[in-house]
Amino acid sequence: MTENPPTEDQEPRPRRKRADVLAPLPRMRSLLFAPASRPDVCAKLPRSDPHGVVLDLEDAVAPAAKAEARVQARASAAELRRLHPDLAIFVRVNPLGTEWFAADVAEGLDEELTGIVVPKLEMGAQVDPVLDALIEAGRNHLRLLVGVETAAGVANVAGIDRMLRHPRICGAYFGAEDFITDMGGVRTDEGLEVLYARSQVALAARLARVPVLDQVVAAFGDDERFLADAAVGRSIGYSGKLCIHPSQVPLANQCFSPSPEERERARALLAVWEEAQARGEASVAFEGQMVDEPLARRARALLDE
Amino acid sequence: MTENPPTEDQEPRPRRKRADVLAPLPRMRSLLFAPASRPDVCAKLPRSDPHGVVLDLEDAVAPAAKAEARVQARASAAELRRLHPDLAIFVRVNPLGTEWFAADVAEGLDEELTGIVVPKLEMGAQVDPVLDALIEAGRNHLRLLVGVETAAGVANVAGIDRMLRHPRICGAYFGAEDFITDMGGVRTDEGLEVLYARSQVALAARLARVPVLDQVVAAFGDDERFLADAAVGRSIGYSGKLCIHPSQVPLANQCFSPSPEERERARALLAVWEEAQARGEASVAFEGQMVDEPLARRARALLDE
Amino acid sequence: MTENPPTEDQEPRPRRKRADVLAPLPRMRSLLFAPASRPDVCAKLPRSDPHGVVLDLEDAVAPAAKAEARVQARASAAELRRLHPDLAIFVRVNPLGTEWFAADVAEGLDEELTGIVVPKLEMGAQVDPVLDALIEAGRNHLRLLVGVETAAGVANVAGIDRMLRHPRICGAYFGAEDFITDMGGVRTDEGLEVLYARSQVALAARLARVPVLDQVVAAFGDDERFLADAAVGRSIGYSGKLCIHPSQVPLANQCFSPSPEERERARALLAVWEEAQARGEASVAFEGQMVDEPLARRARALLDE
Repeated sequence: MTENPPTEDQEPRPRRKRADVLAPLPRMRSLLFAPASRPDVCAKLPRSDPHGVVLDLEDAVAPAAKAEARVQARASAAELRRLHPDLAIFVRVNPLGTEWFAADVAEGLDEELTGIVVPKLEMGAQVDPVLDALIEAGRNHLRLLVGVETAAGVANVAGIDRMLRHPRICGAYFGAEDFITDMGGVRTDEGLEVLYARSQVALAARLARVPVLDQVVAAFGDDERFLADAAVGRSIGYSGKLCIHPSQVPLANQCFSPSPEERERARALLAVWEEAQARGEASVAFEGQMVDEPLARRARALLDE
Repeated sequence: MTENPPTEDQEPRPRRKRADVLAPLPRMRSLLFAPASRPDVCAKLPRSDPHGVVLDLEDAVAPAAKAEARVQARASAAELRRLHPDLAIFVRVNPLGTEWFAADVAEGLDEELTGIVVPKLEMGAQVDPVLDALIEAGRNHLRLLVGVETAAGVANVAGIDRMLRHPRICGAYFGAEDFITDMGGVRTDEGLEVLYARSQVALAARLARVPVLDQVVAAFGDDERFLADAAVGRSIGYSGKLCIHPSQVPLANQCFSPSPEERERARALLAVWEEAQARGEASVAFEGQMVDEPLARRARALLDE
Repeated sequence: MTENPPTEDQEPRPRRKRADVLAPLPRMRSLLFAPASRPDVCAKLPRSDPHGVVLDLEDAVAPAAKAEARVQARASAAELRRLHPDLAIFVRVNPLGTEWFAADVAEGLDEELTGIVVPKLEMGAQVDPVLDALIEAGRNHLRLLVGVETAAGVANVAGIDRMLRHPRICGAYFGAEDFITDMGGVRTDEGLEVLYARSQVALAARLARVPVLDQVVAAFGDDERFLADAAVGRSIGYSGKLCIHPSQVPLANQCFSPSPEERERARALLAVWEEAQARGEASVAFEGQMVDEPLARRARALLDE
């Protein structure tokens, strides 16, 4: 453990919330990343209207720039908070076990962040050391959004570890690029190579009752590919998508929301269904489908979004 | 626990079999559902020649109609048994934990049913309470066919729970609609969103040595989609399919049986293979494939169906 | 346990290595099988330039020919070693639990083999009996390459068993034909029916830090299918492929090696990336992709192959 870090914030603030009464994460259809080392880029993050933003200290920041990026992350977070009080703002630290983790937590986290993103979580036993570092830094009130993006992480969301079940974890994402690099595999457009892992992570998140964000699409100019990939993610049960370019944000916001056609169909389906219920029936044909309780429940859930 | 239910059957009958010596379920390529609250529909179930039928008290029956549906389920089952003594007849009760479960078991089960269908089983620890209710109702001799159709159920067929291994479970099905509703996902034609779950359930059933029935196709008028979906199910290892419309039954019966072409090819393959064996060889080319023991075994299994 | 077998090798040789300091398996992009009962075929195995060869006592040898095949396997192995000292040479024995296993180990293994292939491994608890047999036969120095090709094997590479983690296992393969036969399923060209199992085995091998070889393509004349299947295997993380025909070997060697185009792209990507790093940036656009640490790491890994 390190000593309490020197703090850039001059005014002492009370802790906003105790860790055990954290509100759940807001629904985030898009979570847009930018290098914390680029305050100019970070300041512009809200322009594309993302539901959450991440100031990244990890993959997007070169080793030589990490130290300064921590200071920049705090300044950017405070400024974003001031101008966009309703925006969900996160900082992604480097993984536990790296030379940067301790200083990232000690020096990189504004007190009023929505949460901290912990990448490459590999097992449940890593959560407590992360919490210890947060306590040490006076940041134990922050939500934890964790990345599942290694072979070990994907294995340990299931099995006896079930690492996402730790009560302090408020959300997760699946990192396909890191995962497939760890596997020694190759990313393809169709994505069959990650279907197992992507499905297992979504299932684990559902069982842990935390929202889960879908993999990055690195080809930031290819809208069609993004939409196709997002449609698969949504079909599996992901609730939003990591974005690495502002152009992806409106696509994610759209794709993870029900379309007007879907809403219209859900309303019509429920009307037919409720008529049937009034007749004492619970199974009814609608547009060539046999509709019963699970389909009606899905229609209601869609209209609630 | 409820009291033993009043029984519609006037003649006392001996228990047909002790629970610990239950015969395995017959091979069911098609298992056709109808609302127990529709005796007219239930009476017509055998017309499409399904291998098994389910009188449904769960999703297909509205809450207000549940009580009467129990009486109807018993009457329909007795009548079906009388007219079709070789038909496998099941009643699906509501899930353990619902307000309807106890009365469904107490009042909805004819004594001579082939078995009870227990939907949304979520963990092995739920089997004993189901058995307790069956004992209480004097129905402990009934076979258990369980539905795996929630996130928890899909997780707990694997892992340390391995819920299908309970010795009283005689069969299982995978319920894609309920599962994907529980995941917050979306069903697609291609079905990649359930491939992980569908595969995991089939594997678990194989390890538990029970037959497993494949997901419903809700689009009851779309034969092509049904056949495509059934072909995937069969390729994974499912032995039959849930049907929600009589038109699906002949498709399921056909798709889960070897075609004449498959039989012919299997016979020819085995002929070549046995010639090779007679020469002391066990690996031989046949129609552009290298055939060895596993392919020969599969050909024999196909001809045994 | 059987007595130490009589040995064909006349000169006593020292054990080459202790079992606990075995070198890892060499990278094998292709592992070509032949029936041990066909010494003529075995002698020609090196012609297609496979990275490893397997003299098969299991599926490719008829029961009546097993005894003689053991003698032939030893003779072929010795001769291959003499003529091709750098070739990785294995013998595949019959599975533990069969009537042939003990004699295969006692009589079929040349002392200087690269390793023994143990098919249809089903659980971690089976490894020690295999090792006992190897000790008994004076072959405890041989590497273990195990086949995961049954429902139980696929289940037990994950879960609490994690059978590939046994420290004596040096490599694994996934056997799709046997697996799907065990499941009662059907093999298809697209292969969705084995995607779950194939992915789970690759993940388990990665966690056990052993190389893993991809499924056979039985249609030995269909190069396009082989290449398509191999591309999926490589994308998942397999490092090479089982081959059952010499014509498949160059395809496997090619497909599991980076292409010149991939190398060129990786070099260009790293050049752009390193320029960015020099500017203190770690996230940079390259050919329409946002490149950060995981993509750069994958490019470096590709150039290291």
